[in-house]
Amino acid sequence: VSIPRSSESRRTLAKNLRLLRAERALSQERLADLSGLHRTYVSSVEREERNISIDNLERLARALGTSLATLLSP
Amino acid sequence: VSIPRSSESRRTLAKNLRLLRAERALSQERLADLSGLHRTYVSSVEREERNISIDNLERLARALGTSLATLLSP
Repeated sequence: VSIPRSSESRRTLAKNLRLLRAERALSQERLADLSGLHRTYVSSVEREERNISIDNLERLARALGTSLATLLSP
Repeated sequence: VSIPRSSESRRTLAKNLRLLRAERALSQERLADLSGLHRTYVSSVEREERNISIDNLERLARALGTSLATLLSP
């Protein structure tokens, strides 16, 4: 298993995702349902393992009721 | 050739890319060189055809001297 390269942006995203989920009391599974993604996918994004695309970032932002810019702000 | 689905985020990104490039007087080719991406790739992002990943978004933001959040702000 290769260790994935993690970028600064991935770290910021992972941190914000966890924070926003906690504020809304959403589980990874519930966020996955709301955004149309798989639970293991959301989990891997929060572990900074995924090079997530802009379309999926938009799905997550919408599901959390926030903007893409907010989701990616340090 | 299938017509690619374009998301709201792709439109915002494309608009900001063109604007920031213009402000800095950078050609697509020069921005591609600075960000380590291919010229045709940058061009396709500006046409909203690419589902660009977070790592490549970070490359573009760095090359433009801006933040990922700014690059994706409406």
